[in-house]
Amino acid sequence: MKAIEEYHSHFLDYLANYNKSRNPRNLYDPVKYILDIGGKRLRPILTLMMTDCFGGHISKALDAALAIEVFHNFSLVHDDIMDNAPLRRSKKTVHEKWDLNTGILSGDAMLIMAYKLFESYDDSKFKKLSTLFSKTALEVCEGQQYDIDFESRVDVSMDEYIKMIKYKTAALVASAMQMGAIIADASIENQEKCFRFGENLGIAFQLQDDYLDAFGDPKSFGKQVGGDIIENKKTYLFLKAMDLGSEQDKLILNDLYMRKIENKGKISKVLEIFERTGAAKSTRQIIHDYTENAFLILDSMEINNTKKELIRVFGTELMTRTS
Amino acid sequence: MKAIEEYHSHFLDYLANYNKSRNPRNLYDPVKYILDIGGKRLRPILTLMMTDCFGGHISKALDAALAIEVFHNFSLVHDDIMDNAPLRRSKKTVHEKWDLNTGILSGDAMLIMAYKLFESYDDSKFKKLSTLFSKTALEVCEGQQYDIDFESRVDVSMDEYIKMIKYKTAALVASAMQMGAIIADASIENQEKCFRFGENLGIAFQLQDDYLDAFGDPKSFGKQVGGDIIENKKTYLFLKAMDLGSEQDKLILNDLYMRKIENKGKISKVLEIFERTGAAKSTRQIIHDYTENAFLILDSMEINNTKKELIRVFGTELMTRTS
Repeated sequence: MKAIEEYHSHFLDYLANYNKSRNPRNLYDPVKYILDIGGKRLRPILTLMMTDCFGGHISKALDAALAIEVFHNFSLVHDDIMDNAPLRRSKKTVHEKWDLNTGILSGDAMLIMAYKLFESYDDSKFKKLSTLFSKTALEVCEGQQYDIDFESRVDVSMDEYIKMIKYKTAALVASAMQMGAIIADASIENQEKCFRFGENLGIAFQLQDDYLDAFGDPKSFGKQVGGDIIENKKTYLFLKAMDLGSEQDKLILNDLYMRKIENKGKISKVLEIFERTGAAKSTRQIIHDYTENAFLILDSMEINNTKKELIRVFGTELMTRTS
Repeated sequence: MKAIEEYHSHFLDYLANYNKSRNPRNLYDPVKYILDIGGKRLRPILTLMMTDCFGGHISKALDAALAIEVFHNFSLVHDDIMDNAPLRRSKKTVHEKWDLNTGILSGDAMLIMAYKLFESYDDSKFKKLSTLFSKTALEVCEGQQYDIDFESRVDVSMDEYIKMIKYKTAALVASAMQMGAIIADASIENQEKCFRFGENLGIAFQLQDDYLDAFGDPKSFGKQVGGDIIENKKTYLFLKAMDLGSEQDKLILNDLYMRKIENKGKISKVLEIFERTGAAKSTRQIIHDYTENAFLILDSMEINNTKKELIRVFGTELMTRTS
């Protein structure tokens, strides 16, 4: 079993070899640019890890891992347009560096490039991987749509919120893991466990992201702490505070979330309500629950204990991060 | 062998059954809307026709035909954003009726939905169809990029222009036909002939479209006659006029194409140059050549003469249209 760093460097080598200049430059330069910006490469690492865990060669998992990463970056390019985001990891977003049309068209090309990466697999695996990929990709779009819809709705339930992040974020993590199992010819039961492990971990990961956006350490958190509050995003913290808070808390929160206020006062007022109502504590609890659930599923997988331990360490690191 | 109208109505029935309301509505209503707007349904008809020609059941070709049509409509939604087009077949474009973000996201969903439609085929055909589809889809993106690039270039060659329309338009027509042959288990040789027939016909079709944009009958042509001239589009007519014209013709044309002028005077001046330089005649000739080339390839296909004749009639109708 290889250490995480080995998966990471193996993947980066493969990506570097893939990520060449192509013609027409105005279509493919933005693809190269966004793939070079980097990130944790979490999803492709999970694919390689699961293939390795089930006794497959990680070299066989590289194309699927790359497909997942190219798709993830496609979704970032189009989401950044939709969110009007000027920066991504302190670099200009594609539509800012080039223009709107380039962002749309290069994103489209990346979605197709992701599908093409499965072509190195035999007919049977190609169909399994592509089918899982399409289902996931459509869920990512649906999750993005729910996220947009929720902005203008006042009656979003916590179940709906969890469904949204399950589709928008967790589905791709889950797929990345299941693909690793598919490539290693793991049993259907183990494939499904990989998916559910990834789904639970993905939900925990996104809830953690929301939590850190409010309560993270400004020094280590990559984005502006309180960004979601300024944007009036109805995260789990907000929904829970609306659920647990007094009538007066709800009135204050609703009022603060009706307008665009960028001052520090708003953030500290909201954080105080999140803490006092128990929404913060409740969010920490649900993150803990999803993480535990993921680890229970991991425990039931038919892989040896050394491998399980490595996955557990990796998962724990993800979930105890402060940034 | 069924008549064209039968393919058409068979396809429309299948489309109507597919094109239902789905959740989230804000993602899928625009998909339903654009697929309902209509059009000639040329590409899916070609898929059904080729499956039938090679002895396959057209019911087997419906999912691939639908994939081609869904993809075609995806490209219209995203192209309309890029072209800033308010109308499509006299109806509001998706980004006009909804908004930019809806146009982007619903388009993305359609691209994925197109891929999903191949899932009804067995492993081997699924991979053949998906692989051809991805190659084609990427060419359509590249063709669109070349088209955008050409707007700001003054040195576009006629070969480059033909390559652009081959990718942007002809590739999908060619693929639609080859898919029909793949589904009917035609020989590789016949599959490739289908592709080349479609490619030649597709190039002829697009050149004809450009020609009709300048010289079409305003009563029957769907769009504004002279639209490309107003938009300063460097079509084959323009490039050929720049090639054949005198130094003075070139100066006048270049001058007229440097600015946005919407008056009738510009259109008639340009048309006069297109005619006088022989660019119009030369364009009619090359349309004729690509059409003849398509029919020569058709002649060499291993299908019976009655079927060939029907395809020839269909092709001839496409190429002698005035709108």
